[in-house]
Amino acid sequence: MTQPRPTLRADGRAADELRPVTITRNWLDHAEGSVLVEFGRTRVLCAASVTEGVPRWRKGSGLGWVTAEYSMLPRATHTRSDRESVRGKIGGRTHEISRLIGRSLRASIDLGALGENSIAIDCDVLQADGGTRTAAITGAYVALADAVSWLGERKKLAKPNPMVQSVAAVSVGVIDGEPRLDLPYEEDVRAGTDMNVVCTGDGGFVEVQGTAEGAVFDRPTLDALLDLAVAGCAELTRIQAEALSRDAAPR
Amino acid sequence: MTQPRPTLRADGRAADELRPVTITRNWLDHAEGSVLVEFGRTRVLCAASVTEGVPRWRKGSGLGWVTAEYSMLPRATHTRSDRESVRGKIGGRTHEISRLIGRSLRASIDLGALGENSIAIDCDVLQADGGTRTAAITGAYVALADAVSWLGERKKLAKPNPMVQSVAAVSVGVIDGEPRLDLPYEEDVRAGTDMNVVCTGDGGFVEVQGTAEGAVFDRPTLDALLDLAVAGCAELTRIQAEALSRDAAPR
Amino acid sequence: MTQPRPTLRADGRAADELRPVTITRNWLDHAEGSVLVEFGRTRVLCAASVTEGVPRWRKGSGLGWVTAEYSMLPRATHTRSDRESVRGKIGGRTHEISRLIGRSLRASIDLGALGENSIAIDCDVLQADGGTRTAAITGAYVALADAVSWLGERKKLAKPNPMVQSVAAVSVGVIDGEPRLDLPYEEDVRAGTDMNVVCTGDGGFVEVQGTAEGAVFDRPTLDALLDLAVAGCAELTRIQAEALSRDAAPR
Amino acid sequence: MTQPRPTLRADGRAADELRPVTITRNWLDHAEGSVLVEFGRTRVLCAASVTEGVPRWRKGSGLGWVTAEYSMLPRATHTRSDRESVRGKIGGRTHEISRLIGRSLRASIDLGALGENSIAIDCDVLQADGGTRTAAITGAYVALADAVSWLGERKKLAKPNPMVQSVAAVSVGVIDGEPRLDLPYEEDVRAGTDMNVVCTGDGGFVEVQGTAEGAVFDRPTLDALLDLAVAGCAELTRIQAEALSRDAAPR
Amino acid sequence: MTQPRPTLRADGRAADELRPVTITRNWLDHAEGSVLVEFGRTRVLCAASVTEGVPRWRKGSGLGWVTAEYSMLPRATHTRSDRESVRGKIGGRTHEISRLIGRSLRASIDLGALGENSIAIDCDVLQADGGTRTAAITGAYVALADAVSWLGERKKLAKPNPMVQSVAAVSVGVIDGEPRLDLPYEEDVRAGTDMNVVCTGDGGFVEVQGTAEGAVFDRPTLDALLDLAVAGCAELTRIQAEALSRDAAPR
Amino acid sequence: MTQPRPTLRADGRAADELRPVTITRNWLDHAEGSVLVEFGRTRVLCAASVTEGVPRWRKGSGLGWVTAEYSMLPRATHTRSDRESVRGKIGGRTHEISRLIGRSLRASIDLGALGENSIAIDCDVLQADGGTRTAAITGAYVALADAVSWLGERKKLAKPNPMVQSVAAVSVGVIDGEPRLDLPYEEDVRAGTDMNVVCTGDGGFVEVQGTAEGAVFDRPTLDALLDLAVAGCAELTRIQAEALSRDAAPR
Repeated sequence: MTQPRPTLRADGRAADELRPVTITRNWLDHAEGSVLVEFGRTRVLCAASVTEGVPRWRKGSGLGWVTAEYSMLPRATHTRSDRESVRGKIGGRTHEISRLIGRSLRASIDLGALGENSIAIDCDVLQADGGTRTAAITGAYVALADAVSWLGERKKLAKPNPMVQSVAAVSVGVIDGEPRLDLPYEEDVRAGTDMNVVCTGDGGFVEVQGTAEGAVFDRPTLDALLDLAVAGCAELTRIQAEALSRDAAPR
Repeated sequence: MTQPRPTLRADGRAADELRPVTITRNWLDHAEGSVLVEFGRTRVLCAASVTEGVPRWRKGSGLGWVTAEYSMLPRATHTRSDRESVRGKIGGRTHEISRLIGRSLRASIDLGALGENSIAIDCDVLQADGGTRTAAITGAYVALADAVSWLGERKKLAKPNPMVQSVAAVSVGVIDGEPRLDLPYEEDVRAGTDMNVVCTGDGGFVEVQGTAEGAVFDRPTLDALLDLAVAGCAELTRIQAEALSRDAAPR
Repeated sequence: MTQPRPTLRADGRAADELRPVTITRNWLDHAEGSVLVEFGRTRVLCAASVTEGVPRWRKGSGLGWVTAEYSMLPRATHTRSDRESVRGKIGGRTHEISRLIGRSLRASIDLGALGENSIAIDCDVLQADGGTRTAAITGAYVALADAVSWLGERKKLAKPNPMVQSVAAVSVGVIDGEPRLDLPYEEDVRAGTDMNVVCTGDGGFVEVQGTAEGAVFDRPTLDALLDLAVAGCAELTRIQAEALSRDAAPR
Repeated sequence: MTQPRPTLRADGRAADELRPVTITRNWLDHAEGSVLVEFGRTRVLCAASVTEGVPRWRKGSGLGWVTAEYSMLPRATHTRSDRESVRGKIGGRTHEISRLIGRSLRASIDLGALGENSIAIDCDVLQADGGTRTAAITGAYVALADAVSWLGERKKLAKPNPMVQSVAAVSVGVIDGEPRLDLPYEEDVRAGTDMNVVCTGDGGFVEVQGTAEGAVFDRPTLDALLDLAVAGCAELTRIQAEALSRDAAPR
Repeated sequence: MTQPRPTLRADGRAADELRPVTITRNWLDHAEGSVLVEFGRTRVLCAASVTEGVPRWRKGSGLGWVTAEYSMLPRATHTRSDRESVRGKIGGRTHEISRLIGRSLRASIDLGALGENSIAIDCDVLQADGGTRTAAITGAYVALADAVSWLGERKKLAKPNPMVQSVAAVSVGVIDGEPRLDLPYEEDVRAGTDMNVVCTGDGGFVEVQGTAEGAVFDRPTLDALLDLAVAGCAELTRIQAEALSRDAAPR
Repeated sequence: MTQPRPTLRADGRAADELRPVTITRNWLDHAEGSVLVEFGRTRVLCAASVTEGVPRWRKGSGLGWVTAEYSMLPRATHTRSDRESVRGKIGGRTHEISRLIGRSLRASIDLGALGENSIAIDCDVLQADGGTRTAAITGAYVALADAVSWLGERKKLAKPNPMVQSVAAVSVGVIDGEPRLDLPYEEDVRAGTDMNVVCTGDGGFVEVQGTAEGAVFDRPTLDALLDLAVAGCAELTRIQAEALSRDAAPR
């Protein structure tokens, strides 16, 4: 197991380099928070919708609720997929990613300070080129923060500043024996080992999901991948902070 | 029943004026044809996907096939709607509009010249402000034309030039007694009568769908609405032609 | 575009002639209004069911509600179709027609006078030979009127006489270049242009739905089809009035 | 346990008397066999549809196949029920009765003589007043016989005369301690014990389904109910034979 | 039709002999009543779940409610079946058996004495070798009795001793002309006639469901099968009583 | 972050101690491999079903296929859950776990040596007390090995010994600040951080899935949890090997 070196990848990046990342706030006119996030050619639209009140099982708890739904447009991918609405059921992968995004976002917010409000984050993949779930989490955090500000401006929070820490996510994997950061589709399909890591802004772990796709991995590889991911998340945290520091265009 | 006069509407338009219309080709990297079409704040992503072959019931006919699927993102609208994939079934409105788009597009193409190829057009409403189905048809025609060019460049057409005429669509309605063109959401909900008209580039009718929402309409009103719609479609035809005349950005 | 002339059709009718139409009231013993309507060999059973109260979103409005559901028995058609209950989902065509019937019926009734009562009209096609949706609307209007009388006899209306105007519907189309009224199945499949028109008893338009099936239509054709349809609806209005003027057989 | 005596029931019948039964053949124009069967106010439309070939699991066996589907129109009953197509699933009762009808019909036919043809019998209850499944079986047998004749006239049977015996069905039950034949709805809901019996024309049993609804039954009661049912089926057999002996109206 | 004689069957049993039956109470730790019941190699896990309150339509009636759900594990059978959850719908056979078990159990209990409590009995077939529905009923009765005791110990019954009579069930059928008791799978598939009988502890009938699978049956056969079934149920009643008399292992 | 110490847990175990684990092979008579696996009170039935051939998309590849389906009986848990078959759809958690089990098992087998055979592993949770997915993987591996032996005995493998390494899984988590191995339900709900780890017999990682449930975790905690999990999997590997070394009871 070697350490990551700055080799050149198909898109010219170093092994430890992110793709160009852009975060466009207020991409939609109606949503309380909305972000078009791009990790290279991967493009995800994250829309945060605020509702007063919480689901029945949570009523009277004083706590708010945050959920997420992930989906892909049929032609986000190289070949068209059938719509899940047409098939009449949601696939396992979609469910799995929606749950991951929701858990990750809930780690960023004090649900007591949010008060009995619900925020639903829709993450719709307009174009997919690897890393759609990590782009979704990274963008959804910014949309969530905007939706919480929207509630704050309307004096609807139970306590000020419910956002307790930022969350960002990135994929890492081993390609041709080399650990690499932020895999595009063509690397993702070739990866022997694949890991998605969600970190807080100060480097804590929220989720670590590593999968051996064909090649079982050892502890040193795991360590190298975690190092790459932590550094990548730190860079994404910086990009999120910069996006949130800009004046949002008026709606 | 009075003739349309150039009164001022909430968005400053004359009664016979379209909203600003933009057609962005090649908005996606993978699709054989793709358009982001905007009618004011209504934004629809149209993606054309080519498959070799046709559905089983059409095999051996020598004819191609064109279908469309329409859908709205959950937060395209002012308040969030549940996903049809989550509800497990497609609503009547969605079905109705998908069928309308498909029929309209098939009027623009010679399916014999297309040969045994299938083109599926996905029209996903990213933001809705009235006229989503008419924007979808107008944009989808351009995406279809690009997908057919893609087939032509690869020598996969049965005969050259399958596109026999352009199609475009616009909504018209009576608001406060006045016939108006291209209704945004706030006019749409107030319209007594509402009509969607699909025309070919030379002014023939493909679809005429008029509905009295509360106010039955008479023949002069119907005539006035058709006049408005035909003029609106002619303007949309010009915008489509201009978009198709530009060099598409390389993918 | 020529005017309709009294040519002979396969079933011996003139171009502007309806098929034999019969309306049998009280075909069922339990329903508050029920009609077996026949347009030639097309046979639709329309049953109106009254419920006190309205859907939740309408409660306290003082307004009633009228809906319709259209369906076909599996062997209504030349070859058997699968049941939608067995397929587990309702097709787009069924949805589209159910919505059309509901909208059309709501144009005939003052929902404030109906008061907070709901009427559901089930239109089940027992045998199909073209024009099932127009027969359904024509028959459903009579079943609705009977159900409203039933409410009136029981002093359950908010105001007397909620039925403000009758509605009837007919199909028209261009076959071999000739506009024709009330198409049976064999003409329907050959029609280049096809239109369903719903009129009120005094000739106002409720719905105009024209579709070019292969042949785009021009304004004179549209005008000729509308003329035929308006005359056909007037004749249907007369047949409805006659049926309603008869003493209904006791239940 | 006493023997059935000729007491008077609400509808004036003796305990061992059927309701008026009518069997109208060729009620539909398209189906290969069709019957409107009435047991008093219970009205079931039975349509037999012939398809060449058999389901995949049966191919090459030389044997035909017969199935049935039972359904109720929403307003067949005193209060309207939701459609199973709208609910998106078929209820247990519907499944159970469809299977019962199919098994019963298969007892009447030599599937080897039928050859590799499939016959689907749709039994749609237009109006329900008790005994819908027994009316359905009784009518469906006649529709099946007509469909088999249709095949015979076209020389599509493997061997002549596949119909080996007739089947008919009737309900029996104990009301106020008295065994009664052919229960209408108002007796059915009051029955302590309820039994549906399917017999062949020569009195053999095809199905015996007895249920204690609240009151467990002893052997003498079971015997009395079976006696009633066997006599009732014999009378239905006679009515079926008479219907089949008439010249069917030309289609 | 001959009387049953003590011939030897494939598993060495006499025609009127049950397979080895075992009833293991408290097989689960959480359920208020649970039984693993075995009829030879058929193994069914019956779990009774108590909920306070009753379904809405029964509220305020003072009566309790008992339901059952039957299901098979995918590999309970010789070849694997698809899960009904994966297919997205429950098959007719499953519905039919669930309803049968529920009706049978309700015959054993005084729902007024149960009070407004609900008991759901899940019968999951872990391994199937014929007679799964009869084993399920026989085991479910014991699980139900334990759940009722659980309620009694917690003083939650409206009146003491709601269990008014036991119920047990067994299959019988004619194989090679011989009536036999408790059919394993290999006899079940060969049976010309097949009957499931549910009896109370004192020999009354709760359900009698006989089906001619290919061979219509006459009255003497029916009588012989009922005799066998009544004797078999009496033996099962004895085994149930013995199981319930043992101290249940502590949970 | 402290190292795990041998504190006493509610069930008397040390922090690094597994619950009693038992693996009963051949629990079913029909399945090609079957195991009842118990981790304390968690009980999962794993059944391996062999089919000749592979899904269509894999035909001609020479490779076999292994899938898994996970499900819970309704009363496996403390309170009853609705069946997924009754709800008509499979939940996200079920999908996620089924996919995890399938991926884990495929890491243990050389699909080329398996040849074009499919093995489906059903993991049905009979009783749940935490760790159901890890018990399922651990038991399913043994059932898979037995099914592969079954194929080997019948000379149906492409190459001998497709099982290339064993897989086992265990949960770990931080409770009251202490890392613990193999969490029962009551610890699972209290865990701040929760991780499921799947290892091969020689200690390589197949899956690492860590989730902060409320408490973000740092690198030392992650390391401590991985250490615990690796040791736990080694012990499970030993138990699997022992179970497989015993003569399986004859079927």
